[in-house]
Amino acid sequence: MSTTLIRGGRVITATDDYLADVLLKDGIVHAIARDMAVGPEVKVVDASGLYVLPGGVDTHVHLENVIGPTITCDTFASGTKAAAFGGTTTVVDFALQTAADSPLEAIARAQRSAEPQVCIDYSLHCIVTRVDAQVLADVKHAMRHEGVTSFKMFMAYPGVMMADDAAIFQMLRQVGADGGMVALHAENGTVIDLLIKEALAAGHTAPRYHAMTRPALMEGEATHRGIRLAELAEAPIYFVHVSSNQALKHIVAARDEGIPVFAETCPHYLLFDDSVYSSDDFEIAKYVMTPPLRTTDDQNHLWRALRYDDLQVIATDHCPFCMKEGHLGYQLQKMRGKDDFSLIPNGAPGIETRLVSLYDIGVMQGRLSLNRFVQLTSTTPAKLFGLFPKKGTIAIGSDADVVLFNPNATQTIHAEHLHSQCDYTLLEGRTLQGRVEKVFLRGELIVDGAEWKGREGMGQFVRRGEVRAF
Amino acid sequence: MSTTLIRGGRVITATDDYLADVLLKDGIVHAIARDMAVGPEVKVVDASGLYVLPGGVDTHVHLENVIGPTITCDTFASGTKAAAFGGTTTVVDFALQTAADSPLEAIARAQRSAEPQVCIDYSLHCIVTRVDAQVLADVKHAMRHEGVTSFKMFMAYPGVMMADDAAIFQMLRQVGADGGMVALHAENGTVIDLLIKEALAAGHTAPRYHAMTRPALMEGEATHRGIRLAELAEAPIYFVHVSSNQALKHIVAARDEGIPVFAETCPHYLLFDDSVYSSDDFEIAKYVMTPPLRTTDDQNHLWRALRYDDLQVIATDHCPFCMKEGHLGYQLQKMRGKDDFSLIPNGAPGIETRLVSLYDIGVMQGRLSLNRFVQLTSTTPAKLFGLFPKKGTIAIGSDADVVLFNPNATQTIHAEHLHSQCDYTLLEGRTLQGRVEKVFLRGELIVDGAEWKGREGMGQFVRRGEVRAF
Amino acid sequence: MSTTLIRGGRVITATDDYLADVLLKDGIVHAIARDMAVGPEVKVVDASGLYVLPGGVDTHVHLENVIGPTITCDTFASGTKAAAFGGTTTVVDFALQTAADSPLEAIARAQRSAEPQVCIDYSLHCIVTRVDAQVLADVKHAMRHEGVTSFKMFMAYPGVMMADDAAIFQMLRQVGADGGMVALHAENGTVIDLLIKEALAAGHTAPRYHAMTRPALMEGEATHRGIRLAELAEAPIYFVHVSSNQALKHIVAARDEGIPVFAETCPHYLLFDDSVYSSDDFEIAKYVMTPPLRTTDDQNHLWRALRYDDLQVIATDHCPFCMKEGHLGYQLQKMRGKDDFSLIPNGAPGIETRLVSLYDIGVMQGRLSLNRFVQLTSTTPAKLFGLFPKKGTIAIGSDADVVLFNPNATQTIHAEHLHSQCDYTLLEGRTLQGRVEKVFLRGELIVDGAEWKGREGMGQFVRRGEVRAF
Amino acid sequence: MSTTLIRGGRVITATDDYLADVLLKDGIVHAIARDMAVGPEVKVVDASGLYVLPGGVDTHVHLENVIGPTITCDTFASGTKAAAFGGTTTVVDFALQTAADSPLEAIARAQRSAEPQVCIDYSLHCIVTRVDAQVLADVKHAMRHEGVTSFKMFMAYPGVMMADDAAIFQMLRQVGADGGMVALHAENGTVIDLLIKEALAAGHTAPRYHAMTRPALMEGEATHRGIRLAELAEAPIYFVHVSSNQALKHIVAARDEGIPVFAETCPHYLLFDDSVYSSDDFEIAKYVMTPPLRTTDDQNHLWRALRYDDLQVIATDHCPFCMKEGHLGYQLQKMRGKDDFSLIPNGAPGIETRLVSLYDIGVMQGRLSLNRFVQLTSTTPAKLFGLFPKKGTIAIGSDADVVLFNPNATQTIHAEHLHSQCDYTLLEGRTLQGRVEKVFLRGELIVDGAEWKGREGMGQFVRRGEVRAF
Repeated sequence: MSTTLIRGGRVITATDDYLADVLLKDGIVHAIARDMAVGPEVKVVDASGLYVLPGGVDTHVHLENVIGPTITCDTFASGTKAAAFGGTTTVVDFALQTAADSPLEAIARAQRSAEPQVCIDYSLHCIVTRVDAQVLADVKHAMRHEGVTSFKMFMAYPGVMMADDAAIFQMLRQVGADGGMVALHAENGTVIDLLIKEALAAGHTAPRYHAMTRPALMEGEATHRGIRLAELAEAPIYFVHVSSNQALKHIVAARDEGIPVFAETCPHYLLFDDSVYSSDDFEIAKYVMTPPLRTTDDQNHLWRALRYDDLQVIATDHCPFCMKEGHLGYQLQKMRGKDDFSLIPNGAPGIETRLVSLYDIGVMQGRLSLNRFVQLTSTTPAKLFGLFPKKGTIAIGSDADVVLFNPNATQTIHAEHLHSQCDYTLLEGRTLQGRVEKVFLRGELIVDGAEWKGREGMGQFVRRGEVRAF
Repeated sequence: MSTTLIRGGRVITATDDYLADVLLKDGIVHAIARDMAVGPEVKVVDASGLYVLPGGVDTHVHLENVIGPTITCDTFASGTKAAAFGGTTTVVDFALQTAADSPLEAIARAQRSAEPQVCIDYSLHCIVTRVDAQVLADVKHAMRHEGVTSFKMFMAYPGVMMADDAAIFQMLRQVGADGGMVALHAENGTVIDLLIKEALAAGHTAPRYHAMTRPALMEGEATHRGIRLAELAEAPIYFVHVSSNQALKHIVAARDEGIPVFAETCPHYLLFDDSVYSSDDFEIAKYVMTPPLRTTDDQNHLWRALRYDDLQVIATDHCPFCMKEGHLGYQLQKMRGKDDFSLIPNGAPGIETRLVSLYDIGVMQGRLSLNRFVQLTSTTPAKLFGLFPKKGTIAIGSDADVVLFNPNATQTIHAEHLHSQCDYTLLEGRTLQGRVEKVFLRGELIVDGAEWKGREGMGQFVRRGEVRAF
Repeated sequence: MSTTLIRGGRVITATDDYLADVLLKDGIVHAIARDMAVGPEVKVVDASGLYVLPGGVDTHVHLENVIGPTITCDTFASGTKAAAFGGTTTVVDFALQTAADSPLEAIARAQRSAEPQVCIDYSLHCIVTRVDAQVLADVKHAMRHEGVTSFKMFMAYPGVMMADDAAIFQMLRQVGADGGMVALHAENGTVIDLLIKEALAAGHTAPRYHAMTRPALMEGEATHRGIRLAELAEAPIYFVHVSSNQALKHIVAARDEGIPVFAETCPHYLLFDDSVYSSDDFEIAKYVMTPPLRTTDDQNHLWRALRYDDLQVIATDHCPFCMKEGHLGYQLQKMRGKDDFSLIPNGAPGIETRLVSLYDIGVMQGRLSLNRFVQLTSTTPAKLFGLFPKKGTIAIGSDADVVLFNPNATQTIHAEHLHSQCDYTLLEGRTLQGRVEKVFLRGELIVDGAEWKGREGMGQFVRRGEVRAF
Repeated sequence: MSTTLIRGGRVITATDDYLADVLLKDGIVHAIARDMAVGPEVKVVDASGLYVLPGGVDTHVHLENVIGPTITCDTFASGTKAAAFGGTTTVVDFALQTAADSPLEAIARAQRSAEPQVCIDYSLHCIVTRVDAQVLADVKHAMRHEGVTSFKMFMAYPGVMMADDAAIFQMLRQVGADGGMVALHAENGTVIDLLIKEALAAGHTAPRYHAMTRPALMEGEATHRGIRLAELAEAPIYFVHVSSNQALKHIVAARDEGIPVFAETCPHYLLFDDSVYSSDDFEIAKYVMTPPLRTTDDQNHLWRALRYDDLQVIATDHCPFCMKEGHLGYQLQKMRGKDDFSLIPNGAPGIETRLVSLYDIGVMQGRLSLNRFVQLTSTTPAKLFGLFPKKGTIAIGSDADVVLFNPNATQTIHAEHLHSQCDYTLLEGRTLQGRVEKVFLRGELIVDGAEWKGREGMGQFVRRGEVRAF
């Protein structure tokens, strides 16, 4: 295994900010020092003028996820490669318990698919859709023996993914007591389904009705409900993809009361707003994700919360579907809902643009400090989901997952230059400041400018530990 | 200047927690690595089993402070030595603008006193008691040229320290715009003075009436007022010695609204409660500090806030007065108020016991993580008051202020073993877990177990920069 | 129809308080004056020293209600007679839509039972347990043509009464738009059912586990959910039997936001607290009502809300079941749950003691003014449920439903002296200040001290109009 | 004294709404009935199609008030006549304690001026500007023996009216314990004075800078401070002229906590917004009142609060100054501030247009019910300030102060048609629905369409009793 010295960069962690040389050896960060002397066997990389960041940790991605009759259009290979180019070195994907099988089978199945393909390290949240004694026993086993310590449940999508409140409560109670985390998709699925049916019955079939039928109020309601279930269960809880102040305000209030509630938002909620839903154009299907984009007022609340630690994580919810039917052979993608918005698969790509887009609109605009930027995209997700200190920081002994980030370069985003298989990006044509120059995974250089140095299958499954919440 | 290797300790920062060797050289942290090889010229200190912490930063101490007709009973020498034994390597004391002089004179005067005596590094908040064009100009000069970037003002003590709302507003506006911080003592002095007069008129002269006449409601009122003044001034604000939920709740609400409000509490508010004020005994004068101790319910709120970052700093408000009149020659100390509680000088010692007491009741009781413990006592005070990254962390290039802390040792606290000149400690006879084993100031060993290795005058005045708030 | 002059009483309405003579003629309040001269054909009743109150309006009673395998142990006859003795001249009972029939059938069925029996005026809330197009059409018809303008739905009792959120939302939207009101039983039935099953599985079969398995948090959750559904539906909403601050706080917050939320509490939540649930004694089955009794802190919040109009109604939720199996032939009453608390029919009697108990603990204790007492027990329930101005006040043209109340008399409550068929009262042996002396229904004297002057079937069904909310 | 029967009107009180004949006899409401038969000695007034309202109670007017070097431009005669034409039959004006005299002298002085002039009944709030033992004794005496039970204090206007927090606290405590009310003008005068000086120094002399220098934040701050003082004093408190949500939100929160806080707003805050302050035009001096007009968002909050009883009173703060210097001989009126907004006397006329303007924008727009309209403008002010039941309702025994209001008529407002001596009205040219047709004062017809039937000196001083708060 090669040894590399990153010379003269500005090291940024969630707390620190200093100039130093960083020695990557045996896959870990081995030494950090001023003016480190190294022998000729050590490869020296000049990082002067660059930020040296811990590799990004993206705890919400959907690769090869079977969703209804279709599948997200990134494989574990293409998705993790795209992540790497974006400065992310660890992703947490999902293992979906189907009606037929158990959490343990779901985890094993996802691992089998991922293993030969993954280009960066990964783990899995297990999605639990029904709860009984056997499921609870499997969950306990997964936590203790499989290194899977987080579980996702849905309050939306009745008949498909939705679990009832008693099921969620049982999971919260057990998983919380065992040191893990339940992640919740919080929307009132029952009411939303009614609104969808009513919209379609009224002839409202265009993509924008996806947004009209998922009101922020119903995200807020479900978020509050989840919090109360967690409070009753005396367990921590994590909300995925918080988009609106209607949801956020309950999270803020709960934390003010000392209830251990955690939450993520996603770059698209910060980059775009609901003004995109202004016509019946099918192009709007690009913005059909759940929850939908919200108002600029909601954005202001999200930024406030990111700053004051009421939101702790920015993950992508990368859930790509092609706009062009049959692109790379993918079927039943966005076009499926041409005449019925409810058939449009929900989701948008974003795995590669997370860091740079947040650097541009967050750090450059003065909304986030550099430390906070690192904390939100790497350190805290790693801590909350049991990956720390292996992942999420630059410290002696941590995995040598390192990103060299050029704060002065700019780039213009085009889908064709990105590495996702998705045929569009929401950022098409947008020029952003900041660029990922080099990426190291456990000490190995995998991205070097535009060049791919990594290989499929080099990523490892990371067995995760307990939540480190505070 | 000696070079020292701290071998094999567990390094704790606000974010990280890892085993490593830390090389102190040229007064800074020079290298951190696994299994560092060093030459014989390097002194090696075995830290196995010990925590390696950044030196504590105590931003609220009163040494040689003239308060009314008396003076706090620690000199810069005795106080900073006591701080060092407690694991604190930087203090921020006060320079008091008197009626006669300007902020600049006050700063120079305090520096003259401190210079030959200080055993650790120090800086000064300047207390501003009146505001006019000249004062504002001096404040600007102090920020730009003297490295004094924080100013304290009082809403209490009318006729002595109290500034009116317009004066506070003007300071907030100017200091905030210039990147500094106004620290506020928030109690409604006008009402409290009336309550004191009424109590004395009613024959209530015992020390406990100090607490009865300073209701939490009036701390809350003033805190809210300060927040609104800061909001109008579009400036950050810092509240010293928050003791009650009546005050805290406004801080919490303001942060929820995105107003940059910061606050400290002190160890005594966490260690003791108002049950001590239960008799007319004069011994209670030991607990006569401002604000007074509050209820256990208030304590629960303080702990909640410390955990969720609604309080960012734990400082001591070390303000020692002797119980025994004439002790070491000090006059007009606590006994001054034998027949009139309003004459008891307000304050209590605590500079040496901060880290160990918080480790015991905070970390050991599961209320604070180790990272949070470091953040509250070192990193965030350093960031908020412009000392970071020189102080407040263990990172390459930072001052080599390092504490070796033994988490397994216990100690029983006795005033006679402490290094303050004060003749009592609130913790008398209390056994605490944790012990400061060794302290380095800019790489020099100054505390070695019970042995003092430092010397008066070795401390330096630290010129401070802008607030790093988020 | 007889004409009666009530001479010299102190007339109390929700606003006024004055001495006057009140002439009841043609079933209505015909004249109010000082020193009214009347002919000999007018019966004169001396009311000096007495309060002249509008007849009580109790909008939450269960008479002859079939609940599971049993029935409440008051008939329309016994229950309305008891109400009359307690100073209530109008009740609103329930018409339960079963799985088999429609709202309209349910209303007609309840009317057929009530008609020949009722001793005072009555109306019906229709309980809707499932919603489809036909049900919604029937509801519209009931509002327009049957004078039934309020509908009750349940978030509790899954599989029996519980409606899902979409059904509740649809009802709120339609009924609200048509000027009516949906009343909600707000408890999270799904979670509570789980808790019950777990308690029984753990061998916790005693009555007090009824309370343990219905946590206030789950009342609060459901209350919040109901509010958000109403907000989305842009409709008013009414919460029955609010027992806890966990529920109340959401009502308070919603009203602060301008959402038209209304709510009742019941006398038992003010009179008793959860300290009754302290043993495994089966006598505690008397206190098995839903929600269960809460803490004294909850009581303080309820009183605050009653005073500041955050609660608008005090109704009884009279839902009597006998303690002695077979009493008057009633089967499967409280004893049904001897070995399984979940089989105890939920509810307690209270229809006759509402006014006097509230007078005693509310007015006499200075918690409620006389005006507010009338407003909570008569005027506002009448306004909210479309009975005003026919019911709920003493004003020209209103029904001559009048209570002469003696504020100075005291009485000791014994079940055997009350007129309910229930074999116990929660107030057994309690001495209360205040006594209903005489009651007039539409001008007819029906209660004269201990003597019953009314007759079964004299009560009329009151067709109700729109909500008068503000 | 004449006897009058008001035949066939629709009587509206704070609670009731019914058709009846109302007999005014001996100065009081003597009888109310359907189809009352009366002898020929009774004058019958046909009120069919009209509302029969209790006479308006305006608890905030400034007649002949000396304010700085000038005086409000309505005498007790002209002002009370204007009030009468507007449907107000009772005003509460102010007696100002000057530096030289005591509250008792101030009251006597105001009574001497008012006595020969007043056309309607009146009382006085005493303004207390300094507090000492003698003042407190006088206040006690005024409450017990002079029928003056409310006292106004200022947090604004330092050096002129402003009292410090301790003075306000002492008054709250004593007056509250004695059953009276302290009314507070809540603005942070110290900060506002600084802002004014800074604005003038910057050459900002136009009237609109009056608004710019009185930020809502400083109204909010002072309101919160007043609430906390009242809480500490365990006394009720009343806020005059609440204009902004920054103030209102604290009132709402306090009531949610059970603190007896009451407040008024004024018609101009509902009718106009800060868009009037858009130029340097001196005409804007018409809108120079304190607090200034606020945003439309503030208006929405005020309406919400009026509806949900978080504001209890609408009074005018009629404080007229002429725009034309020398109009009717008045000097130093608005023009005084031609070159310095701080010299513009603060205030605007409004005494005559209160009912009709609120009917138009409140009742007609569906924001207030008729009952609530009466409650806000008559009943609750009467209750809060000890005038009830003599004033504030139509009930047997109450003063026969009655307004016949035509809900269908419209009128266009012109200053020249109004009865104030002020040479402008903020409503100039505005057409409003609703018209006061007739006004009775203690049974005497004083306004008959456009005709004045009253006479100066017929008004009486009303000795007031305790607060009736709930």
